[in-house]
Amino acid sequence: MRQARAAGQTIGIVPTMGSLHEGHLSLVRRARRETDRVVVSIFVNPLQFAPGEDFGSYPRSIRRDAKLLREAETDVLFLPTEERLYPSGFSTRIEVDELDEVLCGRSRPGHFRGVCTIVMKLLQASLPDRLYLGQKDYQQATILRRMVRDLDVPVRTVVCPIVRERDGLAMSSRNVYLSEEERNWAPALQAALADAKRRILAGDWSSPGAVTRSVKSRLRSGPGNTEYVELLHADTLQPVRVLEGELVLALAHRLGGARLIDNVLIRVPRERKGNSERKVKR
Amino acid sequence: MRQARAAGQTIGIVPTMGSLHEGHLSLVRRARRETDRVVVSIFVNPLQFAPGEDFGSYPRSIRRDAKLLREAETDVLFLPTEERLYPSGFSTRIEVDELDEVLCGRSRPGHFRGVCTIVMKLLQASLPDRLYLGQKDYQQATILRRMVRDLDVPVRTVVCPIVRERDGLAMSSRNVYLSEEERNWAPALQAALADAKRRILAGDWSSPGAVTRSVKSRLRSGPGNTEYVELLHADTLQPVRVLEGELVLALAHRLGGARLIDNVLIRVPRERKGNSERKVKR
Repeated sequence: MRQARAAGQTIGIVPTMGSLHEGHLSLVRRARRETDRVVVSIFVNPLQFAPGEDFGSYPRSIRRDAKLLREAETDVLFLPTEERLYPSGFSTRIEVDELDEVLCGRSRPGHFRGVCTIVMKLLQASLPDRLYLGQKDYQQATILRRMVRDLDVPVRTVVCPIVRERDGLAMSSRNVYLSEEERNWAPALQAALADAKRRILAGDWSSPGAVTRSVKSRLRSGPGNTEYVELLHADTLQPVRVLEGELVLALAHRLGGARLIDNVLIRVPRERKGNSERKVKR
Repeated sequence: MRQARAAGQTIGIVPTMGSLHEGHLSLVRRARRETDRVVVSIFVNPLQFAPGEDFGSYPRSIRRDAKLLREAETDVLFLPTEERLYPSGFSTRIEVDELDEVLCGRSRPGHFRGVCTIVMKLLQASLPDRLYLGQKDYQQATILRRMVRDLDVPVRTVVCPIVRERDGLAMSSRNVYLSEEERNWAPALQAALADAKRRILAGDWSSPGAVTRSVKSRLRSGPGNTEYVELLHADTLQPVRVLEGELVLALAHRLGGARLIDNVLIRVPRERKGNSERKVKR
């Protein structure tokens, strides 16, 4: 990669855990359009799995992945071993405080520490110009963008839209854990988010609490268990008190053997608020 | 720096907190000899001072420092502001576990986290080929070398020997805190370390505990208070059970308004042990 950089070529990296689907491939294609050399890493990172999570059973399909990446004109497939990345005596970790205390951070202790540490290693090893991340893992993308900013890493973070199945379910390597029945119901998650967004923009609700209560109540009638539904500021991931500005509505739902996450970005114009304030002042 | 790198030039960085002395300048000169572009940063990093430490009173002498650096043919003096390095919302930190639990890490909670975080930022901002550190801050150099290795940062860490005053006192920006009387006694620290090294190599002691007890006892007769005397493995900073291999003997001593640190590296040949083992086997 040093040679490519010295020759003035730009480098894009797409870090993945493999078991690739159209979501990953959309990142690879975007990198292909925007940079000269496309690096894709595949590594199921033990550091980001808590004990009891699905590290051992996480789907792996290297041959198929490699074929898909060739078809997408990937220049470099980086397939490191655990020994290469975490040699004996490895003891460094990167933490992004506060942003990791909400959403998935509550139930996955150490998860984002593991994500930050591995992604920083991949950035250092390949020195890319652009880092491609998916919006599906919204908290992950937000934390990594903050890490990159805070540590002055000379890379531009590009967050790409969620890619969905025809029926609306967000693509995920973990969707294979679903039974047929569960799979049939799963698009309800996205439908609940999309509906809530529509109603927020229509001014149906007066508080963030009303939104999340409504989404939770709707999901309660289906199978599985909702782990969280949160409506937060899109950059800081802090709770919001009023329904305005850049928001993210995100959820996690356990369904059979899968823990599914999904989210939607909502930009609520401040105009309405501004108008009403002006009225008050008059 | 990107241009310099693109032109095939090598970059060396010397991170400092200013108040420069011959110790710092020895790093700058080494960088000058070994790299094309020498970057020196001066930043009194609030993140590495605990509450109650000397952040406010730490000596600052920017004009004098700049003159010394010009004389040493420094190419770039990086003088960042706190706002530039730690903007609002800054929340990322780097920790190196275990190595920070001994020596100065015991009494300076958060210190090495602050050191790792700022040095990582400086490395990212300047993308140097070589990072120059002083052996005087032995634990710091060891932790940073580990961080660089663990995170795959493409930089070579160069640790330079301690520079001492004529009477043996290790140079430090904090030596100015000493009264005349304290300053006169201070070389006793280095003398105790040098003497212990001589006696270890002569085989005078049978255990690490005997060494550290002897050094502590010797210092107890002087002014101030010894914070620690530790004999550790030079790379892992783990306690050693036998006097062999690569060792570091390090101490911290509070003397008036100063907290002085010093250390000595000791390589004890394993040969002797090997011989005795062979004897046992026969």
